[in-house]
Amino acid sequence: MLALYIGNKNYSSWSMRPWVLMRQAGITFEEIKVRFDSFSLQSGFKQRLHTVSPVGRVPVLIDGDLAIWDSLAIAEYLAEQYPDKQLWPRLAPDRARARSICAEMHSGFTELRTHCPMNVEAHLPAAGAQIWSEQPGVRDDVQRLIDMWSALLNSHGGTLLFGHFTIADAYFAPVCLRLATYDLPVPPQIEAYVKRIQSLPSVQEWVQDAMAEQDFIDFEEPYRERR
Amino acid sequence: MLALYIGNKNYSSWSMRPWVLMRQAGITFEEIKVRFDSFSLQSGFKQRLHTVSPVGRVPVLIDGDLAIWDSLAIAEYLAEQYPDKQLWPRLAPDRARARSICAEMHSGFTELRTHCPMNVEAHLPAAGAQIWSEQPGVRDDVQRLIDMWSALLNSHGGTLLFGHFTIADAYFAPVCLRLATYDLPVPPQIEAYVKRIQSLPSVQEWVQDAMAEQDFIDFEEPYRERR
Repeated sequence: MLALYIGNKNYSSWSMRPWVLMRQAGITFEEIKVRFDSFSLQSGFKQRLHTVSPVGRVPVLIDGDLAIWDSLAIAEYLAEQYPDKQLWPRLAPDRARARSICAEMHSGFTELRTHCPMNVEAHLPAAGAQIWSEQPGVRDDVQRLIDMWSALLNSHGGTLLFGHFTIADAYFAPVCLRLATYDLPVPPQIEAYVKRIQSLPSVQEWVQDAMAEQDFIDFEEPYRERR
Repeated sequence: MLALYIGNKNYSSWSMRPWVLMRQAGITFEEIKVRFDSFSLQSGFKQRLHTVSPVGRVPVLIDGDLAIWDSLAIAEYLAEQYPDKQLWPRLAPDRARARSICAEMHSGFTELRTHCPMNVEAHLPAAGAQIWSEQPGVRDDVQRLIDMWSALLNSHGGTLLFGHFTIADAYFAPVCLRLATYDLPVPPQIEAYVKRIQSLPSVQEWVQDAMAEQDFIDFEEPYRERR
């Protein structure tokens, strides 16, 4: 059976992407959670991850003796292994667009990622308002999301980015949670997409698990003093 | 015909990846070079790129009315469109490994990328020696390259990362040029791989074109005062 190494569900946005993808697509896997005790080389987290991955980061997908150590490589592997699940859009141009936006997420949106780290259980509208007023880079990142999602929703029926659920929705699911946590201002069409992603069964399950962790990790918390 | 938007060949490592991939694989395309005048929104570069891409960066591959605006998404598109070229390794586990290392490059090696920007025509061994002594992050990045490449070369015949030329070699070609430019210390097996990449016809052509540019761009030059 496939096994997926992940970090804390409250904080690990990169873990969330393949987890939600597999759960939503009905791909069976064993979840192996490794707590973010610290990211120093001596940490339990790094020691554990280095036994399965050369880079020592989550997520890692294990299939037999094969380790795949990046969320995008995992998505491509699953798309190949489960062609009936249509994890990428069916049409080649849509597939190319989906891959372009996932790759854009993979190496970009650094201002949003830096200032608004994922924190599923928190609700931080005051921090969000301050970030919004002080960080033009965050406003630029959100504007790019609005432009990207609006164009795709308008051309694919308005529900999910490419009509049916794909890797692209899984890839932006943690971003939807950030927009909600920090209460960042977006137009109604985008707010509706965020709510639609939040209501996916796989996302609801992830959120419930994150809520149940009750694990406050200082270095992941720029805005809260405690839970 | 396919068209590929690229930046200055002396500096643009992200442009080099799909260019070398297509040239080496014998895929015909039109090259459209847009000079790095600046990266401000008002620059000629951004104005031009924003007419073809929502993110305004190179590379962009154009196929009819389809724009693909990331090097990894471009590679996946080409691999699908030209299955006979075997741009990814043939075996699924090797393909997963190749995608893992390309994704690792896509979002990682930030210390090497920051301190040793690509500069094809330059030879900067003194800067390289200083970087090597002062930047542990650069040494870590190079060690990771050594570990990665050694393991793959040892298990695939010792010439290219997966035996025959693949996207993975194209993806690390600019890194090979950096190792040479900054004269960073690597073991003989890795030095031989670097030389092998440098001698690929596609890489030689890119290097010749870069040499012919004779275009010194201040903001791309942390170490030189002039050409």
